[in-house]
Amino acid sequence: MDIDSRVSREEDIIQIYLRPLAARWPGALELRDDCAVITPAPGQDIIVKTDPIRAGIHFFTNDNPDDIAWKALATNVSDLAAKAARPFAYTLALSFPRIPKHDWLSVFAKGLEKAQSAFGCILVGGDTDIECGPLNISVTMFGEIAKGQMLKRGRAKPGDSVFVSGTLGDSSLGLHLRKSNNFRNMFSNYADAALERYLRPVPRLGLRSALRGYARASMDISDGLLKDLQRMCSVSGVGASINARELPLSTAMQHVAKLDFRQAISFIAGSDDYEILCAVPPEDDKNFIAAAHAGCVAVTKIGEFSSDPVVRLLDDSGAHMNWGMDNLYFL
Amino acid sequence: MDIDSRVSREEDIIQIYLRPLAARWPGALELRDDCAVITPAPGQDIIVKTDPIRAGIHFFTNDNPDDIAWKALATNVSDLAAKAARPFAYTLALSFPRIPKHDWLSVFAKGLEKAQSAFGCILVGGDTDIECGPLNISVTMFGEIAKGQMLKRGRAKPGDSVFVSGTLGDSSLGLHLRKSNNFRNMFSNYADAALERYLRPVPRLGLRSALRGYARASMDISDGLLKDLQRMCSVSGVGASINARELPLSTAMQHVAKLDFRQAISFIAGSDDYEILCAVPPEDDKNFIAAAHAGCVAVTKIGEFSSDPVVRLLDDSGAHMNWGMDNLYFL
Repeated sequence: MDIDSRVSREEDIIQIYLRPLAARWPGALELRDDCAVITPAPGQDIIVKTDPIRAGIHFFTNDNPDDIAWKALATNVSDLAAKAARPFAYTLALSFPRIPKHDWLSVFAKGLEKAQSAFGCILVGGDTDIECGPLNISVTMFGEIAKGQMLKRGRAKPGDSVFVSGTLGDSSLGLHLRKSNNFRNMFSNYADAALERYLRPVPRLGLRSALRGYARASMDISDGLLKDLQRMCSVSGVGASINARELPLSTAMQHVAKLDFRQAISFIAGSDDYEILCAVPPEDDKNFIAAAHAGCVAVTKIGEFSSDPVVRLLDDSGAHMNWGMDNLYFL
Repeated sequence: MDIDSRVSREEDIIQIYLRPLAARWPGALELRDDCAVITPAPGQDIIVKTDPIRAGIHFFTNDNPDDIAWKALATNVSDLAAKAARPFAYTLALSFPRIPKHDWLSVFAKGLEKAQSAFGCILVGGDTDIECGPLNISVTMFGEIAKGQMLKRGRAKPGDSVFVSGTLGDSSLGLHLRKSNNFRNMFSNYADAALERYLRPVPRLGLRSALRGYARASMDISDGLLKDLQRMCSVSGVGASINARELPLSTAMQHVAKLDFRQAISFIAGSDDYEILCAVPPEDDKNFIAAAHAGCVAVTKIGEFSSDPVVRLLDDSGAHMNWGMDNLYFL
């Protein structure tokens, strides 16, 4: 087999590259049947998330297929982590713009294998086709959680603390570094870490136990803190006040913030962070932080939910700032 | 709201058109959360099928959105029917080439509602986006069946009867009538029925009980009898001999067969029939036919599985015919 050659039949994509990924799941039927079988554990709900990623939107065509595979699973696992569910299986529908090469598929499949292993899930169903349009990777991810225990986004109450995991804005910064070489030179010391955040987000599975124990509402931040916080507030029927100086920033984002704080806020309002946003009753703040640290995830209280249904960003003096969406690029 | 206008926000597609379809499923959380919750019934396996349909491949851009909605669900329900599973829920990811109009969405949503009602399933998760490329509708369908009872495609044995449901080739005929007006004039009396088969396939849910009772292996015919029978034989490690004159034909296809029998065979080898192909131990032939009729589905024995791993098409004298794949259009 010439590694640089194109696959001769669509079915080879499944047979050579995807079947080994499904080997440990009897219900995958070696990807030889039309359907997959999931036998639920007694007393568990099954949590389902489906989110496609596409070349030109969520990744670049020339990205390393290992990174693309990681991102396809990570973005869906992130949703399950925010719901405090344990991912265990996924289906994969690949739509290629042309017949792919063996070397691309080989690296992609190894990337899936690494991501499966990191997230504890396994391929149970696969489908491929060739069509015009960008490379499209549709993952449906299955998780489980004790019956009735899934965390929802719509239960935040006025007075609850607004917590986020990790640091914010890195993925947007990474994307902009990717697009601009000038920009990249300014950030030579930090560029790799920010790029990594765009390409290989880390779902916060370590936060599940803390969320189950103390959070009232939870969701992942995939479309930017502003938009996702507005969604959580809207469904919960509350508002929130966020303290700009409390927003957790990486070293690279601290550098941006020193140069232009409003630019930093714009990146924070940008997408693809895959951190977790949650509402914690204030009396549980300390317990939540301790439980999160026990799961090796840093969390930061960035503000409070309020009864007034508006999302506000406040500076040190308590004055309103805007989210700077009109000021997205400073180069 | 101007019905001929385009939707102003992507979220309106979910709020106005998809949310009502999810109203009866508490675990859909009104499509306001990131994930859907499925609470499995005790003792049931969950059967999963995901198969996207795309403009230009499975339907035409100017097809009635009511028909497109039907086909998106029917093609996935057909797989579950062949596995003897009961469909109960589905997720839907819609990818539009541009922001759709209210009138299109309104008819599409009513089509989904009719299909839901016909198949007994309900929307539990939805996602939409706008991207370049053809309209893409990705359905993940969930069914249930008693634990361990899912019918597989790989269990056919030499000597088993080869059965198919309904009639074959109509969908290919419908597609060709659609593409050729001349051709259509020749079939004026039958055109509508064949077109209907292409646009609105009917999953054979009525066959589930007969399949559970008597079939050893089963799958739906989505890529044509030849290709799908070859797949069943390959996974089962058997072959099959099919008697050409036993192939069940509609009135329209009988007309084709009279004009050019090889052309009829080409249509039968074409895709999108969504009938069921199954293996039945010969001593159960009569019981299977009776149980199928009790479910209001006609079934026909078209041949036998054999130990010789080849799929043969035989004429009245027992001589081998070819499947006529080199002779796909006779106009």
